Amino acid sequence: MKLKDIGEFGLIGLIRKGVPSPGGEVLVGIGDDTAVIKGEGGNCLLLTCDALVAGVHFDLSYTPYRELGWKAMAVNLSDVASMGGVAQYALVTLGLPPGTDTAKVEELYQGMGGLGERFGVRIVGGDTVSSPVLLISLALAGEVREEHLVTRSGARPGDSLLVTGTLGGSGAGLALLKGGLPFPQGMERLVRKHLAPLPRLKEAALLVANLKPSAMIDISDGLALDLSHLAAESRVGAEIWKEKIPLHPQAKEVARFLGRSLDDFALYGGEDYELLFTLPPNQVQRAKGLLKETGLTLIGQILPPKEGLVLSEEGRRLPLVVRGYDHFSK
Amino acid sequence: MKLKDIGEFGLIGLIRKGVPSPGGEVLVGIGDDTAVIKGEGGNCLLLTCDALVAGVHFDLSYTPYRELGWKAMAVNLSDVASMGGVAQYALVTLGLPPGTDTAKVEELYQGMGGLGERFGVRIVGGDTVSSPVLLISLALAGEVREEHLVTRSGARPGDSLLVTGTLGGSGAGLALLKGGLPFPQGMERLVRKHLAPLPRLKEAALLVANLKPSAMIDISDGLALDLSHLAAESRVGAEIWKEKIPLHPQAKEVARFLGRSLDDFALYGGEDYELLFTLPPNQVQRAKGLLKETGLTLIGQILPPKEGLVLSEEGRRLPLVVRGYDHFSK
Repeated sequence: MKLKDIGEFGLIGLIRKGVPSPGGEVLVGIGDDTAVIKGEGGNCLLLTCDALVAGVHFDLSYTPYRELGWKAMAVNLSDVASMGGVAQYALVTLGLPPGTDTAKVEELYQGMGGLGERFGVRIVGGDTVSSPVLLISLALAGEVREEHLVTRSGARPGDSLLVTGTLGGSGAGLALLKGGLPFPQGMERLVRKHLAPLPRLKEAALLVANLKPSAMIDISDGLALDLSHLAAESRVGAEIWKEKIPLHPQAKEVARFLGRSLDDFALYGGEDYELLFTLPPNQVQRAKGLLKETGLTLIGQILPPKEGLVLSEEGRRLPLVVRGYDHFSK
Repeated sequence: MKLKDIGEFGLIGLIRKGVPSPGGEVLVGIGDDTAVIKGEGGNCLLLTCDALVAGVHFDLSYTPYRELGWKAMAVNLSDVASMGGVAQYALVTLGLPPGTDTAKVEELYQGMGGLGERFGVRIVGGDTVSSPVLLISLALAGEVREEHLVTRSGARPGDSLLVTGTLGGSGAGLALLKGGLPFPQGMERLVRKHLAPLPRLKEAALLVANLKPSAMIDISDGLALDLSHLAAESRVGAEIWKEKIPLHPQAKEVARFLGRSLDDFALYGGEDYELLFTLPPNQVQRAKGLLKETGLTLIGQILPPKEGLVLSEEGRRLPLVVRGYDHFSK
């Protein structure tokens, strides 16, 4: 059997089966945004890593090295945010073709270090190896107070489903980049949203310090796919109210301009790095007040497991089609 | 300027310049085997990562997946050993061609997890991505008591220079593998030494619990190159007594059989993952007693910086030629 037959999430399931389950001081292992290790005095260690490979995650023809470094840091910071934690230390593995320009490597580090510094992260080590394709694997260590920890697995039927910021901007930005056209005027912000996303660490910190989110995940694979992860780990169903999804103001314009379905960006686009989380309904108003600046939208609710994943639109309830980027699918 | 013009160590220097120096709770940053973060109660957090790329670090034509997984874990464990620490948690980034057989991925995890378990390491997370070439980037978190911490930078003139086990076995094993011949009888042990090295965690723990090594590094790039790293970080010179280098008993045989210089294996072979360390001379006998089982050999001494790196042979003192694998050199 080949990887392309079981897909990325089949592979993760396979790996998970072969590795000892969490237990002892390992509070959270494979299957969440970061691993969580119980430490002393109520502090937990967070560990996470994410890799970007040229031709798979990005295309150097439209990705400047500075933005690439930024993004490698951002996707990892976003994982730490979704646990309610703070990031502290980074290890950087770079695989570089020997013909790479040294100035480009410096730009990459400036992007990575610049975003890291903004959130108090220090690059403390790494490995540099020769590779036929450019790749960056970044690992982060961070910390969370045990009482602030939020995983993917705590959502309960009746909880409200919320998302920060807007969705679809990154997918629309990518579509513009792939189109290779001169962008329509004023679209640079969208492209920036794709190339240099801002992780929601501040927002997560505000949430966990003041409220008790029951489950949280960052939107990297797309709203539909990431909701399916959260629902699977929590063993619940969920409903999205489609009209409520907070679309990036320009995503609709891009969909029209490129003749694409808006769902491609809003439900399946991915890489928005917004936070998707669940809360008891009586905490929703308070949460909206806390995240007034970034924006917070109630987009659905958690259902009992037997109801599965549902997309409601104009009063009709349809099964949510779950798809998104799969690294190994045919 | 291209990477191939400045080489791997030129690149590391460049990266180091662009990243804030250690300070505050970061006791050791880029430029040692692991990063070291001061923790609470005298415990320090160790963080390290090392990547293996197909066609660069290994050749799938003679590397079984199980051994590949073992080695990815071993090279990282060896870095933790050289700081005097224990390893605890691993994150695994796998880049896999979509046509990879799922059974091979399971074997890889078995090799990695098997060696990890032996030393108390748990795999707690990772990332799986599609990649045109097979690659493994493993990150480890571990721990060391601050009073047991050994870095590359503490060697002082007059210190004795010692190495555990034997050298040249891995290089000789690799030469046999590359030759592709049926191996001469009894050479499987050498090949195994290359494919599945045993990191010296137990030996390091014995050393730091009982003695005070002034500097330590693991031999991954070869005795000459790794000694040059230790000397550079300690700002000292060093002398190797060539006749004293503990050669793997079969390395000489392989050198003769393949018509290779023995120096290629003993000084420049690399990947033996033995510990190279320095001690005040009055602790050498005690150290030998502690490491009787593994073997420990006095192979030289630390010199004042102005004397540089010296290789002594039959009473003659020559400058030590430093070379080894460079990822980006022409």
